[in-house]
Amino acid sequence: MFEPIAPPHVGLYVCGPTVYGDAHLGHARSAIAFDIVFRYLIHLGYKVRYVRNITDVGHLENDADEGEDKVAVIARLEKLEPMEVVKYFTDRYHRDMDMLNVLHPSIEPTASGHIIEQIEVVKTILENGYAYEADGSVYFDVDKYNADYPYGKLSGRKVEELLQTTRELAGQKEKKNSFDFALWKKADDRHIMRWPSPWSDGFPGWHMECSAMSVKYLGDHFDIHGGGMDLLFPHHESEIAQSNAAHGHESVKYWMHNNMITIDGQKMGKSLNNFITLQEFFSGEHKALQQAYSPMTIRFFMLQAHYRSTLDFSSDALYAAEKGMAKLMQSQQLLHKLPVSPQSSVDIKPYGERLYEAMNDDFNTPITIAHLFDLSKLINQVNDGKAQLTEEDIETLKIWFKTFLLDILGLQEEEQGGNDQLVDDLMQTLLDLRQQAKANKDYTTADHIREALGKLNIQIKDTKEGAKWSVN
Amino acid sequence: MFEPIAPPHVGLYVCGPTVYGDAHLGHARSAIAFDIVFRYLIHLGYKVRYVRNITDVGHLENDADEGEDKVAVIARLEKLEPMEVVKYFTDRYHRDMDMLNVLHPSIEPTASGHIIEQIEVVKTILENGYAYEADGSVYFDVDKYNADYPYGKLSGRKVEELLQTTRELAGQKEKKNSFDFALWKKADDRHIMRWPSPWSDGFPGWHMECSAMSVKYLGDHFDIHGGGMDLLFPHHESEIAQSNAAHGHESVKYWMHNNMITIDGQKMGKSLNNFITLQEFFSGEHKALQQAYSPMTIRFFMLQAHYRSTLDFSSDALYAAEKGMAKLMQSQQLLHKLPVSPQSSVDIKPYGERLYEAMNDDFNTPITIAHLFDLSKLINQVNDGKAQLTEEDIETLKIWFKTFLLDILGLQEEEQGGNDQLVDDLMQTLLDLRQQAKANKDYTTADHIREALGKLNIQIKDTKEGAKWSVN
Repeated sequence: MFEPIAPPHVGLYVCGPTVYGDAHLGHARSAIAFDIVFRYLIHLGYKVRYVRNITDVGHLENDADEGEDKVAVIARLEKLEPMEVVKYFTDRYHRDMDMLNVLHPSIEPTASGHIIEQIEVVKTILENGYAYEADGSVYFDVDKYNADYPYGKLSGRKVEELLQTTRELAGQKEKKNSFDFALWKKADDRHIMRWPSPWSDGFPGWHMECSAMSVKYLGDHFDIHGGGMDLLFPHHESEIAQSNAAHGHESVKYWMHNNMITIDGQKMGKSLNNFITLQEFFSGEHKALQQAYSPMTIRFFMLQAHYRSTLDFSSDALYAAEKGMAKLMQSQQLLHKLPVSPQSSVDIKPYGERLYEAMNDDFNTPITIAHLFDLSKLINQVNDGKAQLTEEDIETLKIWFKTFLLDILGLQEEEQGGNDQLVDDLMQTLLDLRQQAKANKDYTTADHIREALGKLNIQIKDTKEGAKWSVN
Repeated sequence: MFEPIAPPHVGLYVCGPTVYGDAHLGHARSAIAFDIVFRYLIHLGYKVRYVRNITDVGHLENDADEGEDKVAVIARLEKLEPMEVVKYFTDRYHRDMDMLNVLHPSIEPTASGHIIEQIEVVKTILENGYAYEADGSVYFDVDKYNADYPYGKLSGRKVEELLQTTRELAGQKEKKNSFDFALWKKADDRHIMRWPSPWSDGFPGWHMECSAMSVKYLGDHFDIHGGGMDLLFPHHESEIAQSNAAHGHESVKYWMHNNMITIDGQKMGKSLNNFITLQEFFSGEHKALQQAYSPMTIRFFMLQAHYRSTLDFSSDALYAAEKGMAKLMQSQQLLHKLPVSPQSSVDIKPYGERLYEAMNDDFNTPITIAHLFDLSKLINQVNDGKAQLTEEDIETLKIWFKTFLLDILGLQEEEQGGNDQLVDDLMQTLLDLRQQAKANKDYTTADHIREALGKLNIQIKDTKEGAKWSVN
């Protein structure tokens, strides 16, 4: 049961992207998972401050303490200033998230924009004795910390095991132990992004930005910290250690991690030739893809698995998601045309309770979607005259569909563009002409219209209330 | 004649928005003016690094050295953390600029993200003797500076006159002279946005951010610094002073200022009840507006005046802009349907030369547009059989229209949405039906179709090649 620290306020911090490449399914999954958390908490009436950061400095290759900065690598290859790389990929990330209908966070701080705040945390940890300086860099003293606090609490790792599994990387001689991690790194000559500090011209360790920025904007005890499962260790484990070392207590009440995405059962990776960006999904332009998949199909596909489960991408699964979502959208439209009865043949109340139960059960979106499919079935039965609903019950269903499908799951009709009204008007003109032709017993013209529309994949269905049309 | 410092590279810095409210015509004018500079320099083959900043801290009310921070005022009124205000209005600014088809800058640094860089510049100016500390704040010593460098060079103001015109504001007792300006301000208790510095917990003076960020990303001698005319004094004058005081020389080779916008001859202002946001223009939802104006109409309207001229908004002027742009867009489309002749009856070469001459003459967009209208006239003459063009000349005109109208002026067909093809297909179906009806001498049906389309503001014109349609 979720209990905020200071209701109605909720502080939510999520690790955002390192902006050195285009967003892929993994980015989408994390953003969508916490978008659901954000949306549902807002729906429940909480005042949510959602902070999602942009990592634009300090994230080194291999997530390690040595090697080149991920952003700087691209800047060097493309002959750009690192902040040009940051601007380019941040803009593209925003565009992709907008297409996925991911709400904007309340604050989107950057690591490079919070160097002072990070230096201040490093100073405090040094003062508290849980870090040491070595040749201009500052390292977190895991052994010292482990004597006072349980290191490995989040990930279940033990310091003794880490000693055997962490590699001795080049240039790490200055560390007391291989598992110590950098809080501040002295910049070598080739390092462009650098700032003055009490210890050296350098840059903050990767784990430091989230510790500094979450506390700055949410306080040193806040509700939820989220991120991808791959960040659990060492990133989030290190954040907990930094928090204890700086504040004497943990900052986060609830940790949430979304699970990973596999592609046809395999891990996704640039070297595995199955690395597909979101834009490639949207356009279909990748040799591993047989077709394009719309942003809403990708979103629905993600929501059909619980965020803590692994999710396997395959063409079949995405195709099924496309059909499933279309079905729910059709049901929602059908709701506005249902026949009204004086009495309902079913009690709809339990349906609504189940929708909330599913979301209250750790944001269980696949179950929520299953319940919406149940409602979809009921709507079809009513439409076919096999079940009845009162006007009031139909209105309630409309509210549930809007609330859960659109507001909470964040799905939306795929953009058909701005000509929808004109298309409707032209179709009405054509249907009127056909009606007139039939009235005049001019069946040649009436059939011609039906056939011409058929070629445009538009189906006409004659109903009691006149002809209806739909695009296949 | 523009001569870059280190061709083919061009460094362009433009003062962006203070993000505490929605963008209005003034923001649009500045962004569009320098978008044209950016686009044309790129077209000429320069490699342009375009830096446009976001002011998210340090810009105090009344552009003065005392008073509350503009962002913090909104944060207090809306009970938000200042960075929530920043995120909200930055996103909306980006959305509005995207709608106006303004290209993204290469780097978009924030003032709050460059506190260290600003502190470093203040330190240097103090070391060089052109500033003094007073009670935790640091002020620029204009008198001292004026003995070594010509203060007022850009704005033509004289220190002696300033002494008489600058008011003695509350809390400015610590200044030696009323015209001295803050480089660093000690934060009072209510000030939320504050950082540690050698002098106090405080925040940088407003003029400091541009000095620090332009030099960081473009070097201490770069090509172009742009901004609105209202920034000429004190903002840009102070930047020059800070640059001389810190580096011993000016940083900027060319200063460019776009002029202001008046509304029906009056200055635009929140208190004057003529303050209209861009979104209000786009939606038409403001009591001073008789209709909505599309982003491209606003853009075309701006480009019909030279950036150094004042521009008066009126409904009539915007209406004329709407018609003018539509005419150019129609000409561009007509180019693809022109009859081809074996010989041209006119020499088109001078038309192209004039287009470049106009842009080379300090980005003279109104003259460029006038030349495009001349071409439009020629295109109509060719279409009417009153002039002739070879296929090669028609291809050249296509290139010029694409280059100047779309690439350089940045205009584009208004988005009609994604249903254009369906609309075309439905219209063709209707026109075929009408044709068939006419062939069958069923004039009732043929007229009915024309009338029904007329109600949708669609006009049908019978031509030799069959019926054509256009939306009014």
